[in-house]
Amino acid sequence: MPRHSIASAMIPARPPLVVGVLRGKREESTHQIHAVIARDDGSLVAWHGDPQRQTFPRSAVKSIQALALLESGAADRFGFTPAELALACSSHAGTPLHVETARSMLDKAGFEPEALECGAHWPLEEASARALARLGDEPCQLHNNCSGKHAGFLAVARHLGLDPAGYVAPDHPVQKRVTATLAEVCGVRLSSANRGTDGCSIPTYAMPLSSLATGFARIGTGASLSAARQAAFERLRRAVADHPLVIAGPGRFDSRVTATCGPRVFLKSGAEGVLCAAIPEAGLGIALKAEDGALRGSEVAMAEMLLKLLPTPTTEERALLNELRVPSLKNWQGKHVGFLGMILTSHH
Amino acid sequence: MPRHSIASAMIPARPPLVVGVLRGKREESTHQIHAVIARDDGSLVAWHGDPQRQTFPRSAVKSIQALALLESGAADRFGFTPAELALACSSHAGTPLHVETARSMLDKAGFEPEALECGAHWPLEEASARALARLGDEPCQLHNNCSGKHAGFLAVARHLGLDPAGYVAPDHPVQKRVTATLAEVCGVRLSSANRGTDGCSIPTYAMPLSSLATGFARIGTGASLSAARQAAFERLRRAVADHPLVIAGPGRFDSRVTATCGPRVFLKSGAEGVLCAAIPEAGLGIALKAEDGALRGSEVAMAEMLLKLLPTPTTEERALLNELRVPSLKNWQGKHVGFLGMILTSHH
Repeated sequence: MPRHSIASAMIPARPPLVVGVLRGKREESTHQIHAVIARDDGSLVAWHGDPQRQTFPRSAVKSIQALALLESGAADRFGFTPAELALACSSHAGTPLHVETARSMLDKAGFEPEALECGAHWPLEEASARALARLGDEPCQLHNNCSGKHAGFLAVARHLGLDPAGYVAPDHPVQKRVTATLAEVCGVRLSSANRGTDGCSIPTYAMPLSSLATGFARIGTGASLSAARQAAFERLRRAVADHPLVIAGPGRFDSRVTATCGPRVFLKSGAEGVLCAAIPEAGLGIALKAEDGALRGSEVAMAEMLLKLLPTPTTEERALLNELRVPSLKNWQGKHVGFLGMILTSHH
Repeated sequence: MPRHSIASAMIPARPPLVVGVLRGKREESTHQIHAVIARDDGSLVAWHGDPQRQTFPRSAVKSIQALALLESGAADRFGFTPAELALACSSHAGTPLHVETARSMLDKAGFEPEALECGAHWPLEEASARALARLGDEPCQLHNNCSGKHAGFLAVARHLGLDPAGYVAPDHPVQKRVTATLAEVCGVRLSSANRGTDGCSIPTYAMPLSSLATGFARIGTGASLSAARQAAFERLRRAVADHPLVIAGPGRFDSRVTATCGPRVFLKSGAEGVLCAAIPEAGLGIALKAEDGALRGSEVAMAEMLLKLLPTPTTEERALLNELRVPSLKNWQGKHVGFLGMILTSHH
């Protein structure tokens, strides 16, 4: 049994972090955030809330799900570019950049967009959604924020000579491989007992938040991973750092932090308020989950944590994180009417 | 000092209601809901969480803010229809119905849309937003979900011979009158100390959740209100009951409950998870506030409460409320992947 499982079974819950939404000078709403900071050996550096909280990582683990693409050899066989690798790790905004990158991945692997089983939704970025409507178009599966990840799954299926149909099902060989890899990196057992279905139809597996933090520490340091897996993560981290807009979109938290911090922070959000990060040079992984699912709360907490944990941040890093830890609340006229921020409690 | 203020100062907080978001069979996120059920004399029938919680009512009190329109005589002078009165109480979806009703109100009172000071945003209803984009148009202030309320404010200013410019400011005579009425109906003191700015630029005043519940009980029964005010609320309640789509939009919780329950339930949501209702025949007011601001949580709690508190619900009412208390969670393929529902705790 890995060390952290034994240790974490004895870890008591503490009060969660609290992020307040202030309108004028009054607290209008609050978010409770579970937070774990872990090392790559599974030991915990600090935590708030319940470090054992069973948490669906959702899209936060896309980089781990993308490992199969590199480890199988599919990415090299089809000549995927760094931007395409970044898109496989991305929850994208559906801008033309994202859509064309996904289309290129499918082209290279010999698929039509119809092969994607993620479902369609309007681009998350307003301007792209409006532009599509203006053309009289409807969104297709390429616009789905997960289309890059799914294009990667299809490429793996093609490369391994598998029937791609139904590649989203838990018992399809592609998902079996992806799930096994996720279990290895995070050091957990994953089974149908902790399985749910994600928004894009693939399985998502609940795991303790501490395991998610440990997994992210390992993404950063490569500890306990094979040399090939270390190299794969390095390649993905570099691809994401070089293409910050690809992993989310204009103005989005993930893209802004990545654009400013580059390879120093590897960060990814997931639905329902999950937000994870690796700080490779500090050997740390961070996993956050807003109890209520509100990403706005997790983002504030993550900005605070990065400000504390990033070794000697640059002026630009400090400026960005200081902005993101107290985001302004604006009304429809664009007037500042309040802000979000961490509420200090007696613990730390 | 009104009776309920004295009483409520001694009311202890209890555990809040908890609404769970279940993915597969696992709890993914939870919402804590403060809830108060009050009578029109300010006495509390039941509560969960903190009944004293200072809460910005936001759009939940639009019907109270619309009283000035009737009590000043502006609505009759300008010949506002029941649909127009309903729009003054509405947080609408920006469909053509809503936009044209707001335009008609402005026409009757002699204003151009530019006189509205609520700011513009894309219609909340997707189909209307896409249709607008398809025409190459941009949204204007008529599309703002608060445009009916604001058209009402302008009509009051015109009728009273006031300069309408700056009608959103706390010290404009229209807002002073609206604030005084809100304080009277809810039995609270409102001052700059508990003031914030709402999304549509008008002031919003934090008050104890119990006062908000009391105010809604009075909207339903008319108790402690002047005969003229009772009549005004009756007229507004009837207008809303007869125009359920006007107060929100297709598929929205407020519109669905109103369409099915008619005058038996007078219900209104506000931003940041506020949801209030009057059940006139039971003499009750309900005020809910999700601690985290998530309306999806308050809607589930409200459906549960209405199911319990509505005297002898019809088959249709029961069917709708049973659907709304356990809404399905669907993925992008439209597949059912979970649901929301109240989590039973040891208290009730």
